[in-house]
Amino acid sequence: MDIHAVIRKIAEEALAASRRLARMPETAKNAALLRMADELTWRSEFIIAENKRDVTLAKDKGLSAAMIDRLMITEATIKSMAQGLREVAALPDPVGKVTSMWRRPNGLMVGRMRIPLGVIGIIYESRPNVTVDASALCLKSGNAVILRGGSEAIHSNLAIASILQDVLEQSSLPAKSIQVIPFTEREAVSTMLQLDEQIDLIIPRGGEELIRAVVAQSKIPVIKHYKGVCHIFVDASADLDMAVRITHNAKVQRPGVCNALETLLVHKDIADEFLPRAAAGLQKSGVFLKGCEKTRKILKNIEEATEEDWPMEYLELILSVRVVDSMDDAIAHIEKYGSLHTESIITRDYANAQRFLNEVNSSTVLVNASTRFSDGFELGLGAEIGISTTKLHAFGPMGLEELTTSKFIIYGDGQIRT
Amino acid sequence: MDIHAVIRKIAEEALAASRRLARMPETAKNAALLRMADELTWRSEFIIAENKRDVTLAKDKGLSAAMIDRLMITEATIKSMAQGLREVAALPDPVGKVTSMWRRPNGLMVGRMRIPLGVIGIIYESRPNVTVDASALCLKSGNAVILRGGSEAIHSNLAIASILQDVLEQSSLPAKSIQVIPFTEREAVSTMLQLDEQIDLIIPRGGEELIRAVVAQSKIPVIKHYKGVCHIFVDASADLDMAVRITHNAKVQRPGVCNALETLLVHKDIADEFLPRAAAGLQKSGVFLKGCEKTRKILKNIEEATEEDWPMEYLELILSVRVVDSMDDAIAHIEKYGSLHTESIITRDYANAQRFLNEVNSSTVLVNASTRFSDGFELGLGAEIGISTTKLHAFGPMGLEELTTSKFIIYGDGQIRT
Repeated sequence: MDIHAVIRKIAEEALAASRRLARMPETAKNAALLRMADELTWRSEFIIAENKRDVTLAKDKGLSAAMIDRLMITEATIKSMAQGLREVAALPDPVGKVTSMWRRPNGLMVGRMRIPLGVIGIIYESRPNVTVDASALCLKSGNAVILRGGSEAIHSNLAIASILQDVLEQSSLPAKSIQVIPFTEREAVSTMLQLDEQIDLIIPRGGEELIRAVVAQSKIPVIKHYKGVCHIFVDASADLDMAVRITHNAKVQRPGVCNALETLLVHKDIADEFLPRAAAGLQKSGVFLKGCEKTRKILKNIEEATEEDWPMEYLELILSVRVVDSMDDAIAHIEKYGSLHTESIITRDYANAQRFLNEVNSSTVLVNASTRFSDGFELGLGAEIGISTTKLHAFGPMGLEELTTSKFIIYGDGQIRT
Repeated sequence: MDIHAVIRKIAEEALAASRRLARMPETAKNAALLRMADELTWRSEFIIAENKRDVTLAKDKGLSAAMIDRLMITEATIKSMAQGLREVAALPDPVGKVTSMWRRPNGLMVGRMRIPLGVIGIIYESRPNVTVDASALCLKSGNAVILRGGSEAIHSNLAIASILQDVLEQSSLPAKSIQVIPFTEREAVSTMLQLDEQIDLIIPRGGEELIRAVVAQSKIPVIKHYKGVCHIFVDASADLDMAVRITHNAKVQRPGVCNALETLLVHKDIADEFLPRAAAGLQKSGVFLKGCEKTRKILKNIEEATEEDWPMEYLELILSVRVVDSMDDAIAHIEKYGSLHTESIITRDYANAQRFLNEVNSSTVLVNASTRFSDGFELGLGAEIGISTTKLHAFGPMGLEELTTSKFIIYGDGQIRT
């Protein structure tokens, strides 16, 4: 079979489906999402059987226990997928929303209406639940989706997609709105990334290596973040109890995610008092601390943080700590080493809070709150399809609205240009 | 001189400038824009002398009279550049605008604040007025700009930029906010297009060939339109006088621009009556008509329009005409051959007007108005930096707001995630 030809056919069919889907009313999309939730539950045996094939192959290949755990689908996983579908059905449909409208001096009424992007390609690693989540969000926002999951999950993903497609057909929605690429070859991805006349957006979800490979090859716009090197700056005026609590939460609550804290910046005036208190709780939770010279004069038993540490996204229980002379230095550090993801200031000073919010141009900037809130659900977007640190189109957590664009709609009564 | 090293230095300096510029108040930016208008006027002799060098070289090279005309700067051109600067100063500053803010159940106040994109690269052809226009719009929206004009305008562009930079310095704004690439070699563009860590957005302005070359090479997101194949659909219920007037305006008023009409779709029920009336006025204005078979049964003396004509952007006084059986056929034609730029329906039927606005997903969709209104100024955006037919980030005419993105700002009082 010619992979190139099949991928192109998938993309062409997705484009045709996207045009029909863009016109479908919210009620039809919601009914399909609810039906999908039911069907996944009813056909769980089939999904689990197909997933077993993937798991067996993964074990044969000697994949790590952690990877096999992420790959495995149980009744509980399916229940949670179904729940996700029902939650997306309950979200407001962004399509067709007129976000503003104004009258021109010549009488033209000019408005902006949200419309789907068209066809979205999602490239992701092992977790098969992404197949359901991404399909649901794309469907709700009127976009056709082409899914390219990890090769180790291919049977699971194809099984899930076949159920979702059955429901689309039963619901008189275009079945090709949701398609899984049936190849595990890398060539399939390369081919897909060239089809900029059919596919409007690529969203890679996975490690930095995967994302860099996608960006390097893609002719299609890519929305992504390479990494999240998130900072907390503890200002001289901070409530130190709050600072200890927030720092601990940001680092420890879930260290393996992109909005976890990686570097702690501490104002010199409170470093002597704050650092030992913060370190005690962090070290108790197993956090390995690395510090600048000044930090190590206060926390004597920790390792040195070097130039290599400042831009690091550890994604584990390691934290680099730097004592800074001023807020200017803190902001300069963030500009130099940050990843435009998420930064928080802990302060009681009104002017410093406002200045930090205004001057730090990362995608999410907080005052007196944990970096872990940089998340579509937590910010109230209702869902999250990813986080962008590219400024174009979407910057920060992306919800349903970020899967749409807007066109100009204009009501005239015979106007011509003079 | 090592072009690569110089371009990289320009980009690094633009990045540093952009960070300072992002924090500058509107008053400072406006004062600089007004001062630039004055300085350009006061130093017009210098600009015109440098422009003469370009014009002389262009004549020696045998460039067409039309190209030399576009290149030439007169006192009148400078007056119009100065006027443009004053108009941009009068526009509202999009930076810092909080477009929405909401409270989460845990008390977090979450808002979205508009911020500059950062560094914008503009690649354009001969007209030196773009140097001023683009600089003004980027400055007002808090972005540093790197300008790469046509090689034939290099002395003019450098002269203008030096004046603008002088004003920046006198105004205590970062002088490197506006830079012109001082090389005419193609290598300069290729190098610039690789610097995705310094430059946030590329906007090419010019012919399709230029734009395709930029897209093919760029690692930086590009906002562009290749062409504008704009359609008018004259519905069965159209007010035929209005349809004649609008068709004539859309084709004839300025045929060389991207929002001019290229294909006329006519409902079969009114073709017999409408086509001769429309053709009379068009032909009187020198429009060369090409038609489908059905059109040619009505307008007997015109040439055949072939499959090659439907996707054509003529940019001159040529119009292809097709008789369609229904609105479905008109929409299908637009989907197949259109460029997602601008389409208009002429109708008296309420349902058809609404359906056309909802179902045609081009960047600008009009009812009973000329396609020529698809323009930033005409739509009330205050200015236009370009038109996008790429759905990401901006779709349709782009004003100042499209030169910004938005970050999340979050006011907390100690929230941690549980």
